[in-house]
Parts: sequence; C-alpha cells; structure tokens
Amino acid sequence: MKLTFLGTGAGRPNKTRNVTAAALQLPEPACSWWLFDAGEAAQHMLMQLPLKLSKLSVVCITHLHGDHLYGLPGLLSSRSFDGGVDPLRLFGPRGIRAYIETTFKLTGTVLDYELIIEELDEGCTGILYEEDGCKLVAAPLEHRIPCFGYRVIEPDAPGRLLTGKLEALGVPKGPLYGKLKRGETVTLQDGTIVRPTDVIDGKLVGRIVTILGDTSPCANAVKLAEGADLLVHEATFAAGMEEKARAFGHSTTMDAARTAKEAGARRLIMTHFSGRYSLEDLSGLREEAASLFPSADVATDFAVFEVERRKMG
Amino acid sequence: MKLTFLGTGAGRPNKTRNVTAAALQLPEPACSWWLFDAGEAAQHMLMQLPLKLSKLSVVCITHLHGDHLYGLPGLLSSRSFDGGVDPLRLFGPRGIRAYIETTFKLTGTVLDYELIIEELDEGCTGILYEEDGCKLVAAPLEHRIPCFGYRVIEPDAPGRLLTGKLEALGVPKGPLYGKLKRGETVTLQDGTIVRPTDVIDGKLVGRIVTILGDTSPCANAVKLAEGADLLVHEATFAAGMEEKARAFGHSTTMDAARTAKEAGARRLIMTHFSGRYSLEDLSGLREEAASLFPSADVATDFAVFEVERRKMG
Repeated sequence: MKLTFLGTGAGRPNKTRNVTAAALQLPEPACSWWLFDAGEAAQHMLMQLPLKLSKLSVVCITHLHGDHLYGLPGLLSSRSFDGGVDPLRLFGPRGIRAYIETTFKLTGTVLDYELIIEELDEGCTGILYEEDGCKLVAAPLEHRIPCFGYRVIEPDAPGRLLTGKLEALGVPKGPLYGKLKRGETVTLQDGTIVRPTDVIDGKLVGRIVTILGDTSPCANAVKLAEGADLLVHEATFAAGMEEKARAFGHSTTMDAARTAKEAGARRLIMTHFSGRYSLEDLSGLREEAASLFPSADVATDFAVFEVERRKMG
Repeated sequence: MKLTFLGTGAGRPNKTRNVTAAALQLPEPACSWWLFDAGEAAQHMLMQLPLKLSKLSVVCITHLHGDHLYGLPGLLSSRSFDGGVDPLRLFGPRGIRAYIETTFKLTGTVLDYELIIEELDEGCTGILYEEDGCKLVAAPLEHRIPCFGYRVIEPDAPGRLLTGKLEALGVPKGPLYGKLKRGETVTLQDGTIVRPTDVIDGKLVGRIVTILGDTSPCANAVKLAEGADLLVHEATFAAGMEEKARAFGHSTTMDAARTAKEAGARRLIMTHFSGRYSLEDLSGLREEAASLFPSADVATDFAVFEVERRKMG
C-alpha cells in the first residue's frame, strides 16, 4: 500500500502546500486507489502522478470544510472525461449529498458512471465498504463541525512460498502451488500430504492505515489508530499551542504524538499544517512529536509513504 | 488596462492549460482588478502573480459550467484570509446565488466582507456597475445553458498637458494645471484666458475590453464586441468543426474571427481551447483566425495582454 499526499496545508493553499487530500493505493491485483479528502486542485496535483481517475473507486471526505472539499466536484467530473465508468463510492458527513447534488444540478453536470453517496452519521459503526478484502471503517472525531476519521484494514495473507521446500517435497509446479498459497492442504500422487505450514514462510499481517480528519484529541482517534501501521494525523499547530488548537477543534504536534502512542501505532505522519509554518519549520515540528513518539514524520505535498507487509508473530 | 489569463482550457484542466479564468487590472488610481470566470485553481494561479485578492472588487461569471465556476468558493474564502474587507460584487446567471449560498452554508463558511451577488437575466441591459468611471455591461450569448458576455468601458480622458505651451502662456505650475486637465478654462492674473484645448494634446479614448463566455456566433457577441480594443472570444474548436461547435454551443477559430471582424474590434484573443489541441497546435489555430482577422492571437496560461490608451481622432 502506498499513500501519496496531494495537499498538506490548512485553510487555504499557499505556494508550498496545497489544501488537504491524500491518495491510498491498494495492493495488487486491484490496483485501485482511494482518495481521502479533496481540497481544491486535488485533480491538478493528480495530473503529476501516475494515478488514473478511472481507477479511483472510493472517496472518503472527513468533513465539509472547503479546504477538504472544494476539489471534489471537478475531480468527479474529470473522472468521466478520464473514461471512468465503474461505480464510485463517496463517503462523507451528512450534507455531502446536498453539496454534490446541488452543485451538479446547477452546473448541468452529468456523470458517465454511478456515484454512490453514503452519508455517515455520528453513530456509524461496522464495515462501510469492502474491496478485495480491504475494509473501510469510520468513526466521528472532535471538530467544529461533524468530522470523521477512517481506518483501512487489509486482510491477513499467506506468506511467501518456499520453493526449495516445495521442490524437496516433490510438489510439481502449477495449480498445487496456488492451492497451498490459499491455505489448502494437498495430497501428491505418491500419497505425500503437504500442509501450507510446511511450505509457506509464516503469514503476512494485513496492513492498517488510519487517516483522520481535523480533530482535537479524542477517544475515537485513538480507537481508529489502534495498532495502525500508518497513522495520518493533523498537526495544525506547534507544541504549546494546545489552547488555540482546542478553540478551533484542532491538534498540535504533541497531540498527534500522544494519540499515536496511546494507540500503539507503528508510524505517525503529520499533515494539515497552518499557513504560519514554512517548509523550513517542518523539521522542528517533526522533532516535537518525535520527542514523545519517535516514528513521527511530516508530510509534504507529493510525499509518498510506502506501507510494507509484516510477517505475523 | 492589463488582462492576464489564469486558465485557457475547456472542460477539464490538463498539464498545459488550466480551466477558464482571466484577471483584468483597472488603471490607476484604483488599481483594483476584476475577475472573469473562476475555474478550479484560479486562486492557485493567482499565487504566482502580483494580484492581491484584497484588491479584487468584481467577479463576473459567464455561466455555471464547472470549468468556469469551481474555483469560486475557495477564492472567495481566501479573500477573507488575504485581508479583503471591501465589498465584493459577484455577477452571474441565475443560480449563482444558490450555488454560493448552498456551498457556504454546508461548509460553514463565513466571509469577513460583504458579498453582493447580482443575478443576471436574459433581458439584462444598461450599466451593471461602475467603478472609477469604468462601466460594466452584459448581454446573453448562445450556449447550452444561460451564458453571458461582458463589456468593460473606460471613460474618455484628457490627453497630455503640453508643458511647453503652458510655460509660453505663463500658466504657473500648481492647481491651474489640474483645472485645465479636468477640462476647465482658467484666467491668469494678467487676464489671459487659457482654454484646455490650448494646452492639452487631444483626448484619450476610453478603452473597451470585451470578454465573452462560451457561445456559438450570435448578434449579442458582435454587439458586446463593437469597437472593442480587446475581444476575448472562445475558440473551442478549429476551423471546419463548425457543426460540432454548434452542437455544443461553442465556436471555432473562424467564428471568433468573424465576430471580431463584424464588430470592428481592434484585437482578438482566442481562449477556451479543447483538450485535443496541444500547445504546439495553437499557432495553427491563430493562423486560421488571422486569415480573416489579422489582429488575432491565442491566449496561454499566464499570458498578459496590455491594452494601451489611444488618442482620439
């Protein structure tokens, strides 16, 4: 899985940071990708990347503030131009439907594909959607308006086939390899029984990527980030500005670090920095969070974070 | 007056052309500027220019298609961030109010300035607005949805004061210079009567800039462009594609040239090119129009066209 930031700023774009959006590429074979928030010019950022709008299958909007939303109508329209015909699922707070439907009605926009809009309410639980085994869940956060965090959970998978062992046991190349990889026990022509555990190097843990919207620290942020391989958390303000952050429903670098630590996340990526911080300020912001949670990093526009599979146990 | 293109493409942005928007800078002393259309990322394009959103006083939307509109909510919001406190006038077709009000309500947007929305109807006539003597008029065009063209008319102005003549006539430097420039006749202490025409080098003709929205050829396009110093006309398609252009309510290069010629415009700038045309194709498109109207040019993103004052007569 690969997460690419299309915008890492708060409130309004500036020369170094576009407003919020991030693209999560799912693993093969789907090779589809999901978009988290769609600040203005998200589609312009995408033009610089090898991500086709036709392969976009899910859009998750955290909340309806303009810096997370104003790029959505254009991006949805351009998906038609880009030959997108598969249905697209759009998740977001109540009001997202009115926003899209009003906008498209007034602008005479007709999409060439089915747009399935699912509005979330504060009590949303369970799996919202599943694609190739990857599950999407959401929970409400603490912001000035209804705002959600999302958690993407990949299923566990068998590990690597150990070709040396397969050969030693006399398993012929072909369909039996696939059966073993899928977890099935097979019997060879000579009666030998081969179990997946004999020829597969452990199990791979499904990856968990958590992408939160704007929020002050809250229990749901920790819950969504529990054991996440990658946690994307806003850090609008620097350490010491907690009072201001709370007043606006935001977090500081230390808030983000604390949530990552409490949740037992493996890696924290901070984003959504206030316009007061220049690119040069980011290393200082990173260090603030790293003092509490060492695996902390800062996102910049077009930064790519790979999330590798881990072996179980 | 100076016109800067912020986007010259049709339908969707691509790597070489953003969607439609153009900024017209009014002359001194106002130094304010007016925006014509606001395709997505118009505010991103503006970040590369020395135009402050706080000095933006008028926005004219030609029609409600997304490629002319989706940059508007973000740009209006950012004007607050940019310290814009003076009222802003927004002109556009019916529906522009619902678009802005619905969007701002759903996104919880509150502006720090007064936004005066004036919806145009098909019968709009007369002067919509006047700022420092510059008048704005509009008229409906021929498109798939209601679409307007705009005409900006600068007042005539006195020419240069001829300092040699003033000195020869014994006019003392100071307030009398200003009176003569404003067209007043003055009497010197020795009884000499000095008329403005004695000491001013003619009169300067007010400039006319016409910016049309998407349209097939029509009488109002010619009327709005009558005698314009600069006519901005869409040329979505190349010559020979008139049938397709009509089907979508658009124009070809030849349509634009014909309108410019019929209107007696002084200069034609074509814009809103279909995504099928690369930057390399533009010189060919220019030549098509120039075969009928020699003063034809093509707009590219960030291209600037100066409109100079002319002497009367």
